[in-house]
Amino acid sequence: MFNGLSAFPLTPLVNSTVDEKAFTALIERLAASQVDAIGALGSTGSYAYLSVAERARVARVARLATRAAGEVPVVVSIGAVKIDEVLRLADDAQQAGVSGLLMAPVSYQPLNRDEVYRLYERVSQAVTVPLCVYDNPATTRFAFDDELLIAVCQLPHIGSLKLGPLSGTRAEASARLTALRQAIPAHITLGISGDAHAAAGLLAGCDVWYSVLAGLFPHTARALADAALQGREEEVNRLNAALAPLWALFQRYGSLRPIATLAELSGAVQSPCLPFPLRTLQGEDRAQLAALLAGPALAPH
Amino acid sequence: MFNGLSAFPLTPLVNSTVDEKAFTALIERLAASQVDAIGALGSTGSYAYLSVAERARVARVARLATRAAGEVPVVVSIGAVKIDEVLRLADDAQQAGVSGLLMAPVSYQPLNRDEVYRLYERVSQAVTVPLCVYDNPATTRFAFDDELLIAVCQLPHIGSLKLGPLSGTRAEASARLTALRQAIPAHITLGISGDAHAAAGLLAGCDVWYSVLAGLFPHTARALADAALQGREEEVNRLNAALAPLWALFQRYGSLRPIATLAELSGAVQSPCLPFPLRTLQGEDRAQLAALLAGPALAPH
Repeated sequence: MFNGLSAFPLTPLVNSTVDEKAFTALIERLAASQVDAIGALGSTGSYAYLSVAERARVARVARLATRAAGEVPVVVSIGAVKIDEVLRLADDAQQAGVSGLLMAPVSYQPLNRDEVYRLYERVSQAVTVPLCVYDNPATTRFAFDDELLIAVCQLPHIGSLKLGPLSGTRAEASARLTALRQAIPAHITLGISGDAHAAAGLLAGCDVWYSVLAGLFPHTARALADAALQGREEEVNRLNAALAPLWALFQRYGSLRPIATLAELSGAVQSPCLPFPLRTLQGEDRAQLAALLAGPALAPH
Repeated sequence: MFNGLSAFPLTPLVNSTVDEKAFTALIERLAASQVDAIGALGSTGSYAYLSVAERARVARVARLATRAAGEVPVVVSIGAVKIDEVLRLADDAQQAGVSGLLMAPVSYQPLNRDEVYRLYERVSQAVTVPLCVYDNPATTRFAFDDELLIAVCQLPHIGSLKLGPLSGTRAEASARLTALRQAIPAHITLGISGDAHAAAGLLAGCDVWYSVLAGLFPHTARALADAALQGREEEVNRLNAALAPLWALFQRYGSLRPIATLAELSGAVQSPCLPFPLRTLQGEDRAQLAALLAGPALAPH
């Protein structure tokens, strides 16, 4: 489940409520494309903008859609500011039959190391399926250090670490991953997020790409993931170069707005599909994405 | 209401629910101390960790407590990630009889300028009492520029701007405030937050201090505010010097943890009073605050 290519689809809205028909179609296509897992209700799935009840419902819909399409594992994000909601979301997702959970140390007041440990301690003891620990300073304003990652990995039910872009040279990144592996239980995988730098992370030794791109273009992401996992560096460079315009927009606007724009342009979701006041890209940026969609870089979803 | 000294009290918890008795006592003391307004449910009031129903209840309790104690205006924060909750919170607070509202552009995905404007446009049209616009990059990861502040000030019902610490020299800060004033409607006041730099903001020309310190020590904060508003710079320096250990802890841990620690130490609230996994200070930091509490710097609340 926490290996290879993990796809994070949108949770499209229509009239401010979840568009279950469009969401089901997204999930079914992902399941048919043989991604290794589907990360429903991630940041890309706008989980923070949905109620606890909506998130429970979306987890059930995702499980129904994958069951029909061949049992791809579903992983659901349970991050929330309120601890009682986190625990409720974990229960709801597990009752829906998900295979794994994912959590960043979401807070309103940025947490400190001690508080982050306490959070994972509480949650890891309350769950029964594997939990992926998500280091995402951009939304949490908390950056893990490796000492804390290693401490959290000693807790029960930890299944994977979802790291952000790796700093330094390839050799430095590889050395960090090797040191991490030696310090944590063998069953815990190392994952990379931040699509523009994901292939570099896989080349440096990560086990899994937690991918926004794969949520809408699983075949394109699979080609890039396989090339990187198999060390075919020239192919990685070629594929990344073709996607450079998309990575630039991810860098400028975050990944959610551009991928949601592509979903609108491709007809996979209605427009507007994002929760107010978030907006998909307009004007020249939208035209650039339309051109990318019409070209060879993005394999038909 | 949006002038002078605005006090932001804690919303103390006991067993993970609001300690209404302790909260009422905090509000009654503030009302008796003649602060110019009480900012209930601010960041210091842990609003983000309470449910919509809890926040409605706390707004009613605050109004009841101030009505009994002399009609100090109550201002309530309505920030939330979900727009339907923001609008519901505004309705609930207005029905509770608050005099004003306060909102930072809270989001999960950091918003862009266009999205922030859309948010204030929607909310300002839906409310009937004055709204204070809160520029708080530390929790929202969005920093207003003055052009956007000026645009938002043209919307209906805007009553005040709550700015963060002013950059540059006194003269530069004053010039910025003067330029802002000339560009916005005359009834909109300019406020300063970030307690360590608040007196500097008042000396530079701000109208109001949105104060964490005043939420627990209104007399101490009043002395500092009056000295600054009346341009008594030596007294400002003396008072700030006495509070330097507190400002240092605010800088290091954020203001919530130290002020909550002082509330626990003073017996104003039970311990632990913060929402999980947030913790008040322990060890040497706590001992330092106990010493400060025993000394002359903090006037008895």
